[in-house]
Amino acid sequence: MGILKGMRVVEGSAFVAVPLAGLTLAQMGAEVIRFDRIGGGLDAGRWPLAPSGRSLFWAGLNKGKKSVAVDMKTNEGRELITRIITAPGEDAGLFITNLRVRGWMDHVTLSQHRSDLIQVTLMGDRHGNPQVDYTVNPALGIPDMTGPEGHEAPVAHALPAWDVAAGGHVVNALLAAERHRLRHGVGQDVELSLKDIAAATIGHLGLIGEAALSGKARTKSGNALFGAYGQDFLCSDGRRVMVIGLTDRQWKNLVKATDSADLMTRLAADTGQDLRDEGVRFELRARITATLAPWFAQRPLSEVSRALEATGVTWAPFRTVPQALAEDPDLSEDNPLFTDMIQPGLGRFPVPGAPVTFSEFSRETPTAAPELGAHTEEVLSTVAGLCDTEIQQLFDKGIVENSRRVTRSAA
Amino acid sequence: MGILKGMRVVEGSAFVAVPLAGLTLAQMGAEVIRFDRIGGGLDAGRWPLAPSGRSLFWAGLNKGKKSVAVDMKTNEGRELITRIITAPGEDAGLFITNLRVRGWMDHVTLSQHRSDLIQVTLMGDRHGNPQVDYTVNPALGIPDMTGPEGHEAPVAHALPAWDVAAGGHVVNALLAAERHRLRHGVGQDVELSLKDIAAATIGHLGLIGEAALSGKARTKSGNALFGAYGQDFLCSDGRRVMVIGLTDRQWKNLVKATDSADLMTRLAADTGQDLRDEGVRFELRARITATLAPWFAQRPLSEVSRALEATGVTWAPFRTVPQALAEDPDLSEDNPLFTDMIQPGLGRFPVPGAPVTFSEFSRETPTAAPELGAHTEEVLSTVAGLCDTEIQQLFDKGIVENSRRVTRSAA
Repeated sequence: MGILKGMRVVEGSAFVAVPLAGLTLAQMGAEVIRFDRIGGGLDAGRWPLAPSGRSLFWAGLNKGKKSVAVDMKTNEGRELITRIITAPGEDAGLFITNLRVRGWMDHVTLSQHRSDLIQVTLMGDRHGNPQVDYTVNPALGIPDMTGPEGHEAPVAHALPAWDVAAGGHVVNALLAAERHRLRHGVGQDVELSLKDIAAATIGHLGLIGEAALSGKARTKSGNALFGAYGQDFLCSDGRRVMVIGLTDRQWKNLVKATDSADLMTRLAADTGQDLRDEGVRFELRARITATLAPWFAQRPLSEVSRALEATGVTWAPFRTVPQALAEDPDLSEDNPLFTDMIQPGLGRFPVPGAPVTFSEFSRETPTAAPELGAHTEEVLSTVAGLCDTEIQQLFDKGIVENSRRVTRSAA
Repeated sequence: MGILKGMRVVEGSAFVAVPLAGLTLAQMGAEVIRFDRIGGGLDAGRWPLAPSGRSLFWAGLNKGKKSVAVDMKTNEGRELITRIITAPGEDAGLFITNLRVRGWMDHVTLSQHRSDLIQVTLMGDRHGNPQVDYTVNPALGIPDMTGPEGHEAPVAHALPAWDVAAGGHVVNALLAAERHRLRHGVGQDVELSLKDIAAATIGHLGLIGEAALSGKARTKSGNALFGAYGQDFLCSDGRRVMVIGLTDRQWKNLVKATDSADLMTRLAADTGQDLRDEGVRFELRARITATLAPWFAQRPLSEVSRALEATGVTWAPFRTVPQALAEDPDLSEDNPLFTDMIQPGLGRFPVPGAPVTFSEFSRETPTAAPELGAHTEEVLSTVAGLCDTEIQQLFDKGIVENSRRVTRSAA
């Protein structure tokens, strides 16, 4: 009963960005049909794995989708996928992909079967070459400015941030194109690339202007907040916290919580600088941090937490993911985002639904990911419009397959 | 002439996520009106700054928007903002914000003036507390798994990745709600939080399942690709490259390019492991890297580049941003994404437009960011429907302001 109920999207994908886009659409109520080759796509066994050997990654990114498994090396398999993508329906004819198969899976070919088809294709770079988050990121300079001050080597991010950003753009682009189709009846071919997403974003954030106008690379500043004050501190029990003094109010609250107004007045007098200027706080961050560090070092996390909360400081403790699971109600069923549920073949853990709430719709419980090919028969019947005899023949010939578990040992 | 032409969105925002959402909408052709307090919002002087002292950050995230400056501490100012947000128009009545001002700027109050108002509010966390990328990220465990192997302290990412992700969700949510309004005529109140976006995403990527089922924190693996093979290497001239062996094809191409098939056969025999299994490649990454390192160490980047390109390896050089600007045509006008242009008061540099292309629309040239308040008079007249006398009175009373440059010294 989500906000996109009635919309049907076909997804031909692997890895993060397009599966995440499909997931976002599915968790808003769209019917999302993901097709894969028999035995599973390139990401069928992607780490992390459950103790059972099955991919937690795949299960996480394909929740609530329908799964179809087809041998796309055969003409019959290709025709089936074409029928599924271009099947009739006012809110269908929507295809998202990062497979970029030339020829039969091009927009120009597919739209011969449905002229108002909307196809969104995510490429690695604008030239159509494969690129991944792990290559786009170093090419554009982010790892060079990441990591401890003085650490010489670049440090890559652990989160596939560009993939996540690209997934958002795939959804945006699909919804914008479908809005246009609703009004004007025309489909279109939509293209974007992971590298262009990253390049545009660093431009929007001012990093290209900074490099062009200063000619200099931004230096690493460890865990400091760039351009204002924000820093990590060790507490007396070895726990670490991040505290923020970005806005005037945040800075004042931090000074108040740590009872350091006099120390900051002295620092301002010593340096002749005005700490109300956020840039001055960044430039003087080492001295500010040295001034504040003893306050944190003398208190355990529990006491630091109480003092920061009481004064309204913007802050957070550092945690490992298991610590966050154990400590933070926002990762538990206390948060309506999460449902503690069994993912078949994997185990029980808190599973997130859609992170956006719409006042006209109640929040839906997340649905588990399908077994690979679990909906092959259903989709061939209801979407592709095949009769039982035709479907049986396809199974007999091995052109399609139902429900296969992909485990690491089978990969 | 973008795909969203005719849509009018009002933005009350600061920092990254909502301004980026407004920018995405503006670069798809929507009229986006950003309002700020007189003198500029919390992000008016956000780093990085141009040599002129003006914010490259603000200029980057507010390109092509209209800017209105209003004193929102006065009732008259609040009424003006209310009129602008709830002004008539079939494709208007769309409001995105992260200011979360209770009372007059609530959906329940604003929708008294326009019952089909769609309001998308981004909060820090689901409780309505302020949180920023710099706090959400450590709380959920990403810095703990980032950085060189064996490095004890957590390493924060330099890219505000959760803000960027949240910006995508704000656009998604707005377009989904507007689609629903087009069909059913009803507006709604849409809410999301930065922390929920991050929590949902790490769940979707399998990190919560991994932590729950293994009970263990993922260890840092430096610049290695997690779960398969991918690693950085130093070339003979000191340049560094990232090479990818994630898929079978990528792995085979890498082995071929580095002429290391025999070495890999020997490694497989020595260890009794099958390197065709992506997980095995991750587990044996130290030995694979030691085997491949001499090949890179004996060649300068130019030679490495030729060999990798010839074999179709997925790879990239590490660069600083200035290096990327100098070396990479994807950050220049060779890429239609970029236009080399003067940003008034800042300087000349390549400016990105929209990273998504729609076949029914030609790619638009990006437009510079406005001076703060530059469109106050225009918007009061055309959107709020005030007459010249009323507008003049507002300027006389100081309730609104036109065009102010915010520089660091003025902040």
